[in-house]
Amino acid sequence: MAAPLPRAPVSSPASRAALCPARSNPCTAAAPSSGALGWRRRQPCPVLSIAPGSARSTPAALAVDPKVEALLDSVKWDVKGLAVAIAQNVDTGAILMQGFANKEALAATISTRKATFYSRSRSSLWTKGETSMNFINVHDIFLDCDRDSIIYLGTPDGPTCHTGAETCYYSSVYDALQGSKSNQERQVATTLYSLEDTISRRKEEIVTEGSGKPSWTKKLLLDNQLLCSKIRIFLC
Amino acid sequence: MAAPLPRAPVSSPASRAALCPARSNPCTAAAPSSGALGWRRRQPCPVLSIAPGSARSTPAALAVDPKVEALLDSVKWDVKGLAVAIAQNVDTGAILMQGFANKEALAATISTRKATFYSRSRSSLWTKGETSMNFINVHDIFLDCDRDSIIYLGTPDGPTCHTGAETCYYSSVYDALQGSKSNQERQVATTLYSLEDTISRRKEEIVTEGSGKPSWTKKLLLDNQLLCSKIRIFLC
Repeated sequence: MAAPLPRAPVSSPASRAALCPARSNPCTAAAPSSGALGWRRRQPCPVLSIAPGSARSTPAALAVDPKVEALLDSVKWDVKGLAVAIAQNVDTGAILMQGFANKEALAATISTRKATFYSRSRSSLWTKGETSMNFINVHDIFLDCDRDSIIYLGTPDGPTCHTGAETCYYSSVYDALQGSKSNQERQVATTLYSLEDTISRRKEEIVTEGSGKPSWTKKLLLDNQLLCSKIRIFLC
Repeated sequence: MAAPLPRAPVSSPASRAALCPARSNPCTAAAPSSGALGWRRRQPCPVLSIAPGSARSTPAALAVDPKVEALLDSVKWDVKGLAVAIAQNVDTGAILMQGFANKEALAATISTRKATFYSRSRSSLWTKGETSMNFINVHDIFLDCDRDSIIYLGTPDGPTCHTGAETCYYSSVYDALQGSKSNQERQVATTLYSLEDTISRRKEEIVTEGSGKPSWTKKLLLDNQLLCSKIRIFLC
């Protein structure tokens, strides 16, 4: 359960930003999606300038509202002042990347709505996208039942991985054990997106090969009435 | 990129299990889904008995194929011999829980296809579900670009959280800052599942309130022809 939070009045700009609905933030106003990958290019937001500090330091450089401060204190930071932070695509559900957050990183994410992490190698904060401009625009943040693991749920402006891949997870263990090399197109595929991929391939096959090779999906795609009757079964 | 793996012959039972497609494993044969939550109750599998050891110990108690051993060695385990392991629902994309894996835990997950972690508090392996029987049946495992973060992509047999919630992530930071208490029904909602929830609520409203309160979704649900024409726009 969440620790009770003091009902202090909302005063600081950081807190006001944290209390605004994500969609009403002009920096995160929806632009046309690029489709299946779930990217939405947005205008970059000025990112808060935060003084570097150790992972355990309090976010002194941010004007932190007491409510936000209480929430930050309720997180079970480890002995190094860190918690696991997972960035997830709000549209596709894809896990984009995983890093670590300290108090300052979480405070910055709450206020700027740009996924921000603590780099253990550089001992400093970093906002995903500060170099590539591929920010992850955070719609919501979740803590787990133990309050030591964080999800940044957001919309990426572009590929998240430094390799240019949509997400950092494209190396299947079972593929590797079968001798396949990792392939950035081989992203973690949940059922709906695997299905979408199959339907897209069947549509392409209709164009390139005609309807020669039998497939139930092709049959549905070529017969609107049959397709609608099937869809109605699922909807009703 | 994945480290090249030696092409040793497949010999051990553990490795054979690792190379079998998930769906062909009798322990993970599909049973009817319980719906939106994406649970599938399956027959429990006997879980490998693994001798307790430190997080850094090699999985000596498992007969590990050289291919699997090479893959385990390619993971960038931290100084404690651990990597972050995230369990994700293959159907809904929901992040179910996050723990840590050591070499033994990953080896056990590869061979048994039951999500297995290393408990830092108990200094031992634990397979999610060994007490509750709510196993997470692993379809695939992904490593990230740095090979220090793991996704177990699978189907949960039931709620994953020890509280009985579907996932461990039900505490929204922004809800808490607005004074709302955490609520296990308030799971991380990706766009498609938010949409599904809205459509379900509109359907319920039609039954309980009639079509009095205007809503575009209700209009579509009450007019099959209009609904089909809209769906065709998205499909074509």
